[in-house]
Amino acid sequence: MTIFSKIIAGEIPSYKIAEDEHYYAFLDINPMTKGHTLVVPKVEDDYIFHLDDETLAGLTLFAKRVAKAIEKSVPCVRIGMAVIGLEVPHTHIHLIPIQKEADMNFANPKLKLSSEEMEEIAATIRNNF
Amino acid sequence: MTIFSKIIAGEIPSYKIAEDEHYYAFLDINPMTKGHTLVVPKVEDDYIFHLDDETLAGLTLFAKRVAKAIEKSVPCVRIGMAVIGLEVPHTHIHLIPIQKEADMNFANPKLKLSSEEMEEIAATIRNNF
Repeated sequence: MTIFSKIIAGEIPSYKIAEDEHYYAFLDINPMTKGHTLVVPKVEDDYIFHLDDETLAGLTLFAKRVAKAIEKSVPCVRIGMAVIGLEVPHTHIHLIPIQKEADMNFANPKLKLSSEEMEEIAATIRNNF
Repeated sequence: MTIFSKIIAGEIPSYKIAEDEHYYAFLDINPMTKGHTLVVPKVEDDYIFHLDDETLAGLTLFAKRVAKAIEKSVPCVRIGMAVIGLEVPHTHIHLIPIQKEADMNFANPKLKLSSEEMEEIAATIRNNF
């Protein structure tokens, strides 16, 4: 069971944004910018391009809805998207509110936000979803 | 007319990978790694999350097919995906063959490949599509 499956199952807490039958979105615990969110399919597959067409298309459309909620919630020029997938073996789309290209650099130091700040950001995005 | 629309129309040359009625894929002229490809919808829209659901889902599935062809064509652990979209005002998905997370850093110096190398890479991916 991947760490993301444990999050989806509620065994590990998360700053949840949205959920439906097939997908789950929550704040990245090591955010690159405020509002940095992970969108994952509930099915465990470690590579996005191994997902079947229906699951992949649905994941993208779910991510679009989440991105629109993030846009309304934090100051940003737009929402960048990245899939790397070399760490956690469970497909995840990074949605990253950006002001400039350099905000997408995964080598940047991560933000240190309090749990109160994280929960406030999550609640705002949730309400805009 | 965006530079990508001119590429799609054949007014500007490109190292073409694949094309269908709605989408077009070609090598990034400033590749981060060998095989770095851009996948674009033929419709001009500057923001991926403004695309209608059908176009967005189709773009993702087309990108998946292209990614599978790239995997067969260049040595890589997998294909990373990124959408930033602050430069050219025409939605484009970066498909980047990666060995490690740092290969996805857009601040990295770009490869200098000859036009012969670029055409050889494009032809290989095209044949695997």
